[in-house]
Amino acid sequence: MIGIFDSGIGGMTVAKTIEQVCPQYPLLYFGDVAHTPYGSKSSETIIGYSRRNTDFLLSQGAKVIVVACNSAAATSVDVLRAEYSVPVIDVITATTGKAAAGTLNRRIGIIGTRATVRSGVYEKQIKRVNPDCRIYGQACPLLVPLIEEGWLNKRETKMILRRYLYPLRQHQIDTLILGCTHYPLLTHLIRKKIGKKVQLIDSSIETARHLKSFLDNSPEITSNIKGKFEGCQPHCPEKNRFFVSDSTPPLQKLADGIFGRKINLIKTNA
Amino acid sequence: MIGIFDSGIGGMTVAKTIEQVCPQYPLLYFGDVAHTPYGSKSSETIIGYSRRNTDFLLSQGAKVIVVACNSAAATSVDVLRAEYSVPVIDVITATTGKAAAGTLNRRIGIIGTRATVRSGVYEKQIKRVNPDCRIYGQACPLLVPLIEEGWLNKRETKMILRRYLYPLRQHQIDTLILGCTHYPLLTHLIRKKIGKKVQLIDSSIETARHLKSFLDNSPEITSNIKGKFEGCQPHCPEKNRFFVSDSTPPLQKLADGIFGRKINLIKTNA
Repeated sequence: MIGIFDSGIGGMTVAKTIEQVCPQYPLLYFGDVAHTPYGSKSSETIIGYSRRNTDFLLSQGAKVIVVACNSAAATSVDVLRAEYSVPVIDVITATTGKAAAGTLNRRIGIIGTRATVRSGVYEKQIKRVNPDCRIYGQACPLLVPLIEEGWLNKRETKMILRRYLYPLRQHQIDTLILGCTHYPLLTHLIRKKIGKKVQLIDSSIETARHLKSFLDNSPEITSNIKGKFEGCQPHCPEKNRFFVSDSTPPLQKLADGIFGRKINLIKTNA
Repeated sequence: MIGIFDSGIGGMTVAKTIEQVCPQYPLLYFGDVAHTPYGSKSSETIIGYSRRNTDFLLSQGAKVIVVACNSAAATSVDVLRAEYSVPVIDVITATTGKAAAGTLNRRIGIIGTRATVRSGVYEKQIKRVNPDCRIYGQACPLLVPLIEEGWLNKRETKMILRRYLYPLRQHQIDTLILGCTHYPLLTHLIRKKIGKKVQLIDSSIETARHLKSFLDNSPEITSNIKGKFEGCQPHCPEKNRFFVSDSTPPLQKLADGIFGRKINLIKTNA
């Protein structure tokens, strides 16, 4: 049972990719909508929320935890790994490996929330793989509200994106990490504004691949699960369950839009 | 002791006005930054937060509660009045009275968060005073993030504001209620975009006046307080105290900016 948590609905972009890459395993998703967004809050507060989310997923039977929120991953993953015995996969580790291996000019940009950029985690992890890389972080705090409003093609969104990406263009990066699970919903605009030559790294794809390779090599975790849901469709309600700490019509619409099907959001006070 | 709560820092525009209008009374402010923003969350969740905030202020000695957040006032005030014996003043009641009395063409606009506009509270209260009024609500969910980023004069903010206010211009309103405590920080732009003939109603001023008249007529509440802090300056730390459930450097800057002096934000887990 794969447990995935995020500060809200954005992490569903990761859940959806995991569903495609690891279709044989059941998913448990928890979106902490009641406390969203994490990205503008302090590390201490985000760590408290991450602990609570992990406790909830474990209580529901999760055998591995995926931290599908960059702000939570940037601030809380070390704490979770120290405090819980269950394996913790995060959206940052796989992504930094891909970026460090893929850059040619060793200039990597990273866009994310304030909490993610402030943490310096991407820089630290990339430099561990390739110490010669230069990392340019850019906090983009308005992108999540714009995406949650569904303003994916509005002129204002394009202008704000141009403003955020301008310094990264100046630094002539050849690789850009989308360091927030909401951002893949803006890939079409980001590609236009940053230029076609820049390689975009989507953390959801890298994380799903990383998780798959981890599960394929962890029979002690997967042996109980395999076969149980064979032939079961992703929308089978016993297989993949989606919990939220709060629910409103715009978020339901966003969730349905991400998966391209009706998602049954189960409200819980966890 | 006046207890004021808000979902974050925005309610400090109300606290500041109360400080000016009722300088003789000490203030207790609680900003629920750990759960901010309220405006995009469900009524049920906002009511839960409002109860917790009220409990905290009462535990600190508040004798009257001011709900300085429009989203909380719109969803929770009836519940708080039913459950607590302490008087509850809110940012909506005084404001609607002023709007209903001031309109000439009986076309009133209200801008606020999704929760505030969805609640229909402004409409209900204004129609109680003047049933002939037509109320036009416009949710402006991106304004709070823009203000919290400090983008008070950016071109994108102007464009987004124009987009939000356009339908209200079409309805030829002559009165516009700023139904969110953050919005007074954008008064200069709102006035330009909506036109000079439209009267803007700032809920912080109306609420402070309403509170003053309430306190002037409630000797049973004020007799213990009066004189105790006479001659004490507003920045005297024993007189006015500001609690927050989370704190980050951008919010500290915003708080200092609203008051025009250094504000000591006290972090609490309430």
